[in-house]
Amino acid sequence: MKYAIGVDVGGTDIKFGLVNEEGTIVAKDKIPTRKEDVDPMLYYDIRDAVYAILDKAGVDRSDCLGIGIGLPGVVLSDGQLLGLTNINIGAVNIVEIMEEITGMHVRAANDANLAALGEMWMGGGHGFKDIVLLTLGTGLGGGVVVDGELLYGTDGAAGEIGHLPIVEPEDEPEACGCGKHGCLEQYASATGIVRMAKRVLAASDKPSALREMEKLSAKNIKEAAYAGDELALEVIERVGKILGKGLAFVACVNNPQAFILGGGVAQGGEIVADTAKKYFQKYCYFAAKDTPINLATLGNDAGLIGAARLAMQNLQ
Amino acid sequence: MKYAIGVDVGGTDIKFGLVNEEGTIVAKDKIPTRKEDVDPMLYYDIRDAVYAILDKAGVDRSDCLGIGIGLPGVVLSDGQLLGLTNINIGAVNIVEIMEEITGMHVRAANDANLAALGEMWMGGGHGFKDIVLLTLGTGLGGGVVVDGELLYGTDGAAGEIGHLPIVEPEDEPEACGCGKHGCLEQYASATGIVRMAKRVLAASDKPSALREMEKLSAKNIKEAAYAGDELALEVIERVGKILGKGLAFVACVNNPQAFILGGGVAQGGEIVADTAKKYFQKYCYFAAKDTPINLATLGNDAGLIGAARLAMQNLQ
Repeated sequence: MKYAIGVDVGGTDIKFGLVNEEGTIVAKDKIPTRKEDVDPMLYYDIRDAVYAILDKAGVDRSDCLGIGIGLPGVVLSDGQLLGLTNINIGAVNIVEIMEEITGMHVRAANDANLAALGEMWMGGGHGFKDIVLLTLGTGLGGGVVVDGELLYGTDGAAGEIGHLPIVEPEDEPEACGCGKHGCLEQYASATGIVRMAKRVLAASDKPSALREMEKLSAKNIKEAAYAGDELALEVIERVGKILGKGLAFVACVNNPQAFILGGGVAQGGEIVADTAKKYFQKYCYFAAKDTPINLATLGNDAGLIGAARLAMQNLQ
Repeated sequence: MKYAIGVDVGGTDIKFGLVNEEGTIVAKDKIPTRKEDVDPMLYYDIRDAVYAILDKAGVDRSDCLGIGIGLPGVVLSDGQLLGLTNINIGAVNIVEIMEEITGMHVRAANDANLAALGEMWMGGGHGFKDIVLLTLGTGLGGGVVVDGELLYGTDGAAGEIGHLPIVEPEDEPEACGCGKHGCLEQYASATGIVRMAKRVLAASDKPSALREMEKLSAKNIKEAAYAGDELALEVIERVGKILGKGLAFVACVNNPQAFILGGGVAQGGEIVADTAKKYFQKYCYFAAKDTPINLATLGNDAGLIGAARLAMQNLQ
């Protein structure tokens, strides 16, 4: 059996998954993301953890096809980063560095993009080779897979579905994390839904269970909607409309086999996906309007599995 | 030298181009599109014209790598048509039929998609392998090329950039040809620009050279804008805004190396492209906002050259 190692670099910790050719994670590990001497010591942290997970699992390095690294930022197909401000790494080529210090085959990509590859391989997109994933979490990450391969885009910006300019900047007073106004992420992420709920509550005198909550979250907004709360339902309707419209834009460009929705907003009940589907069909070009909108199934493992998949691909 | 034949099937006539491996059209022909006994006689018309162009050019059939056919409708990657209402052909597999009756290698695609492949090979997208073409003609056709290959999409709907849901259906009383309301094609095609000009003229009392024109066209609206006509400039500004925003949506999905604008609206002066560029930069995700927006250069030959390219690709 051959293996690859998926690495998911986050601001708090770095996760590792030893994944076999069948897509099963056979071992996991996690180390804290260092805050000092990041460049170059972080690279050695990753190397040492890779060696450790192989040793612990008793897998010979010659049976490991490579290392796939997911990073929270813009990554070009050759491994060049624009810079990871959260992690204090500048514009380096992570693939060149890691190949140099490990002697192993290395590939890298944006973490949300890799989740798409993981879901295609082993999750909600299993059986498809052309999918678009949206991860509706704190932010809204995305990834595009074409013919089984991750699409990086010329500037590493393919799959930045969270930044579709879905609302006119003039109509949105608050700025998105990217600096623009009116991005899809501002409405269909967990943060976006809470923001939308506050607006809906402020604009109405109607009673709502949401008014009693100490801290609004996407989860309790969804629960209130399931319980029939009128204003919570209005929030879901508005979010689903914007999301469904965003998917209709994507369908006119790429016309994938399926959309996969991941992240906390989509999980735990299909109310958001179902509402999005209704509006997708309203906005979408006729030929593509039956595109399935499925839920992701791999949770937080999607990125690790996708990273391992990336490292295994196209090796002959 | 090897060759392929590009075929462009239109409602009025069917064009043929014998194209060599270097991308030069060495012979052309044209036959009227029959109105009666279309299925199956149209297929034999195409076959006979293919044989005739080869014979006339003195090219042996063994030196012709295949036939690429562009069609004005939805075409799947295996050659299956949804049906061509203009031409009275139903849901057939054009590749299977034409391979059967010619004994030659045949491929087929939507005509606007093939123009993208042609422009990438020999035109405004030369040197790139990831482009998105928009043809701003009577309608608004589009095509997406990823890593040098045409993207068909699952339902043959990739590149349907003309049907991006750019304006809320509620804000657009007139229907697009596709049945929806608010498609990009309704604003950024030649027809769309004339429609926009009529709206701008009706909503204003300002004098304008456009009021004196017997028949408004995209060409004379552009000319008036170049001459400084205030209302014509407003029309171009509105169209450029909608178009630039549309391109920003595409960039977040695919992040191509370049956008190529073809068709009468884009040609003959860069005023539309330049206005679109200004708004593209306003709406686009930061990493992709320097994507070049170039003009197409092949005119009506783009489809023929793209069709021949399709027939030549991936033959080993």
